[in-house]
Amino acid sequence: MYDTAIIGTGPAGMSAAINLKLHNKDIIWFGAQELSDKVRKSEKIANYPGMGLVTGEELNQRMEAHREEMELAITDRMVTNITKTKKGYMLLAENEIYEAKTLLLATGVITAKGFEGEAELLGRGVSYCATCDGFLYKEKNLAVFCAAPRYEHEVEYLAGIAGKVYLHTSYGESGIDLPNVERLDKPIRKILGEERVSGVELADGGERNVDGVFILRNAVAPATLLPGLAMDGAHIVVDRMQATNHPGCYAAGDCTGRPYQIAKAVGEGNVAAHSILEYLAEE
Amino acid sequence: MYDTAIIGTGPAGMSAAINLKLHNKDIIWFGAQELSDKVRKSEKIANYPGMGLVTGEELNQRMEAHREEMELAITDRMVTNITKTKKGYMLLAENEIYEAKTLLLATGVITAKGFEGEAELLGRGVSYCATCDGFLYKEKNLAVFCAAPRYEHEVEYLAGIAGKVYLHTSYGESGIDLPNVERLDKPIRKILGEERVSGVELADGGERNVDGVFILRNAVAPATLLPGLAMDGAHIVVDRMQATNHPGCYAAGDCTGRPYQIAKAVGEGNVAAHSILEYLAEE
Repeated sequence: MYDTAIIGTGPAGMSAAINLKLHNKDIIWFGAQELSDKVRKSEKIANYPGMGLVTGEELNQRMEAHREEMELAITDRMVTNITKTKKGYMLLAENEIYEAKTLLLATGVITAKGFEGEAELLGRGVSYCATCDGFLYKEKNLAVFCAAPRYEHEVEYLAGIAGKVYLHTSYGESGIDLPNVERLDKPIRKILGEERVSGVELADGGERNVDGVFILRNAVAPATLLPGLAMDGAHIVVDRMQATNHPGCYAAGDCTGRPYQIAKAVGEGNVAAHSILEYLAEE
Repeated sequence: MYDTAIIGTGPAGMSAAINLKLHNKDIIWFGAQELSDKVRKSEKIANYPGMGLVTGEELNQRMEAHREEMELAITDRMVTNITKTKKGYMLLAENEIYEAKTLLLATGVITAKGFEGEAELLGRGVSYCATCDGFLYKEKNLAVFCAAPRYEHEVEYLAGIAGKVYLHTSYGESGIDLPNVERLDKPIRKILGEERVSGVELADGGERNVDGVFILRNAVAPATLLPGLAMDGAHIVVDRMQATNHPGCYAAGDCTGRPYQIAKAVGEGNVAAHSILEYLAEE
């Protein structure tokens, strides 16, 4: 059982991971090896004190160098479900189970709204995890939304199981060239179905009949991840110590609200790590 | 009238100053040209994300380089009193008056307690400002507590007015060599007097009769600076947007509470700057 599970490799998760490692805590840190897409894609950053004017790419490289120096390992698996247990938290990430005494949500903010029908049909044809649920769709038809090239291997995995895959990506051309994968030019507007998923409606009004919809996005909305988490709109409610309404569960960075800023994120990650240290000491 | 007066040139003040300057606000920024003594004197800093393992001196130099790049000017005057006015805040700094619509307190935390009798006799013989009150003590005897070499010019100024100056420094040997300045080896333990200052008691029980006591410290306790400021012990009470109980007055960094960390300070300075931008936009 880990001391802490951190979800998110942006500046907030990084700040917390560094501090917990310095205090010799046993952590598991989920997220992208490339750290933060949002930092990397920033053209210029002028307000991270001490860095001067840098490109997002440069700052992300500095973060990566710091991670290496601290020998912090990243587990590049998508956490799709978290359950509160007696001892702490149980996390499901691509069919593996992890347990931790405390939890830090540093997932970033989900700026894109979910698809219409997504929340309603989750677990009834809608899935966030190809490795977990793909086997259910042998020879069946699927729609897949892919938000980043790093999820393309999951699309290929699904194509190996399913009869047909309708694919839409948020980033244009994909590297996937398989006979049973059909590219949708129009975005998915709505997930259709009553009891279970029956199809998807596209932005041009066209429909495709499918048995399942896989949504491969950078992050899952926090309240979907961890049921009962107190939210204020898209943001997790935290106090000044970054505590959420669940004991032992903290949140930091963009997911707790504006301003969406790197300095704010590292500050909150630092505070959350110190709160976690206190919580673990009291246990 | 300035948009914002920032007090403190540590990481919190720096973070706020950068952000307000980027938004073309007219700011006055009070504090030491050397930025943060606390950062500079840190042996090693490992948990400021993106910097790797650095010495405090290195990190302070990086902050200084960023300040220069942003062309941010520092006013090296000690603010000793702040008054709420209709339009904002009026600050007294070494006999000069400054006015600002909003205020950011980034003073650091006063870890040293005040002297016994200090608060009680403030304005009745106890002063924080040589330039302001020195002229009252022509040919009289003074005790002076000096917390940093950068205040020695104020001690020399007082010695030019007073009959005799009993000096204690918190840093050992001073550079002052004047016939009417006597070095006290023992620290001041208590400021004596009923209606007004009558003397000081030293740690060895010895006493010196003086008419005034000048305390030249890095920072004045926030509630002494700005009467009515809501405090929780030594810390200024703020909400998640860094707002204090006074409209238009914000606080950031160590002065708002633990953890006393650079990352936390830059995060809070960033959030405070964004709150100030919103406040100014609404005015």
